[in-house]
Amino acid sequence: MNTVITLANRPEGRPEISDFNFETEEKPIPDDGEVLLETKYVSVDPYMRGRMSDAESYVAPFELGEPIEGGIVAKVVESEKEDLIEGDYVSGRLDWKEYQVSDGEELRKVDPEVAPLSAYLGILGMTGLTAYIGLTEIGKSEEGETLVVSGAAGAVGSVVGQIGKIQGCRVIGIAGSDEKVELLKSKFGFDDGINYKTTDDMGAAIAEVCPDGVDIYFDNVAGEISDGVHQHINRFGRIINCGAIAHYNATSVPTGPRVEPMLIKKSALMKGFIVGNYEEKFREAVKQLAQWLGEGKLEYSETIVEGFDNIPQTFLDLFDGKNKGKMLVKV
Amino acid sequence: MNTVITLANRPEGRPEISDFNFETEEKPIPDDGEVLLETKYVSVDPYMRGRMSDAESYVAPFELGEPIEGGIVAKVVESEKEDLIEGDYVSGRLDWKEYQVSDGEELRKVDPEVAPLSAYLGILGMTGLTAYIGLTEIGKSEEGETLVVSGAAGAVGSVVGQIGKIQGCRVIGIAGSDEKVELLKSKFGFDDGINYKTTDDMGAAIAEVCPDGVDIYFDNVAGEISDGVHQHINRFGRIINCGAIAHYNATSVPTGPRVEPMLIKKSALMKGFIVGNYEEKFREAVKQLAQWLGEGKLEYSETIVEGFDNIPQTFLDLFDGKNKGKMLVKV
Repeated sequence: MNTVITLANRPEGRPEISDFNFETEEKPIPDDGEVLLETKYVSVDPYMRGRMSDAESYVAPFELGEPIEGGIVAKVVESEKEDLIEGDYVSGRLDWKEYQVSDGEELRKVDPEVAPLSAYLGILGMTGLTAYIGLTEIGKSEEGETLVVSGAAGAVGSVVGQIGKIQGCRVIGIAGSDEKVELLKSKFGFDDGINYKTTDDMGAAIAEVCPDGVDIYFDNVAGEISDGVHQHINRFGRIINCGAIAHYNATSVPTGPRVEPMLIKKSALMKGFIVGNYEEKFREAVKQLAQWLGEGKLEYSETIVEGFDNIPQTFLDLFDGKNKGKMLVKV
Repeated sequence: MNTVITLANRPEGRPEISDFNFETEEKPIPDDGEVLLETKYVSVDPYMRGRMSDAESYVAPFELGEPIEGGIVAKVVESEKEDLIEGDYVSGRLDWKEYQVSDGEELRKVDPEVAPLSAYLGILGMTGLTAYIGLTEIGKSEEGETLVVSGAAGAVGSVVGQIGKIQGCRVIGIAGSDEKVELLKSKFGFDDGINYKTTDDMGAAIAEVCPDGVDIYFDNVAGEISDGVHQHINRFGRIINCGAIAHYNATSVPTGPRVEPMLIKKSALMKGFIVGNYEEKFREAVKQLAQWLGEGKLEYSETIVEGFDNIPQTFLDLFDGKNKGKMLVKV
């Protein structure tokens, strides 16, 4: 038999374990031109919260009663397809199922000799692409500029900061514990960090660690943390709106200081960033990331939880910040 | 004697007539290389409110007890400078004085044969440049797109809408009276308009007149009007933050719905726009505007008040929306 995780309810506010169902089905059999895949690593990501709701967004909502879909690395265990053989590994957007068939069209073959399989869901996958393309295409970081990263100890944030350092920026990270802030500095080479949970006045804290103001703000979080950063944006500043985890579980429209006066005063930019819009940059980005990784210039953290049955809870744990770096489930 | 208008107080909130002083001084005499100028037309503009405050901004604050400075067209009445002669007209940033001397370095000679003198403070001056450059450089308007303009009956807004029409957009204007909305359609060729003062639900009103959503929002206003527009921004939408008159007199930080979730969902852009950052585009822009004006493709409105003594009150009247189009004082 084959276990499948489906969407049981559309959550209002914070999702709960009861919003997921475990179902069983017959293990599928590949048709001609298809492969049978065995799930090995499952990526859980904050953006998936959006797909649990019915609201219009940049990716279609999950369907009630249907499998959840996300980034997965899987092993080919049977192949009726020419260009894949048993034992190959692939990465792509797949269902939360122990086994599934696929025509392989949207999948990418990955090589466990080049990097650990989990890296293809992180630093060499959507995480790394998001960091690199957001920072270069919107941030347009230049040597000597100050870069602030929120959600800095997260999967994307920790890579953003390291790329900022490679590009010669002064890099400040905002994270949710002293331990995470320490990690930013010791492991990822950030110049300084702020623990927002022990900081009453984010504006003052930013002023202290960014004496020359903020040129680039890579924002994974939004909310009050960002209000403090916005106060210190420099002229011609660029804000990359990559995530808004502070609001993903909001049940009413979140309010805060209006940004227009700041944007006008500073001739500053805010731009919503979705990596999927930049597919034409993927090849160059992966090449650059793999090169830096090979040169030992990029570190990454993973929080790997074991067991297919733990996928929903691991996803929920993201909203408590229980991950350091990329959160994954190993099946 | 010569009358000068100086800054008497830095206003908290809405400026008042008592924030200005009328002083007299000896009529100045030009030195070698200077001209004596007689003020003919004075531009009053919402952005000048910002300069009355001490807060850091993109232009330096006015000094207490010193003359107010703004866009002026003046006549050369004495010249000790080679390239200007008595009877020439110039435009530039000058003091609110009946007469003043200048070395002419920052002034632009203007020709009353080509367009009325007042036009050089409007459609062929900062107003026209702001509309054209904002719409083309940030808005990047394309044929068939929907353009919404707030403050649409104002000096900049009415030009933005007309350029949008020339570029093949569907153009919707938001203004503060039925009369203004009628003018947008009858005189400036807007496709439709909304009177925000008689509209309870801006979001619903925008949805009705923009069935295909909003691709470009040229925002002169911010505040609740913009909240309604933001709800209907399309994927890859561009918001040109040109003004925030709703907040210029605010004494505390204005709050409203946070924009990050919208920006991310829609891969949308907000960018603060200050025309002075685009000086390298001025020549091309004035040429294009003058051509359209000559071809009868651009209409403009002016509200011209007479009398030097009326300059401060005319400036204050901007915040009651008493102008249609460019607000000027003829001396």
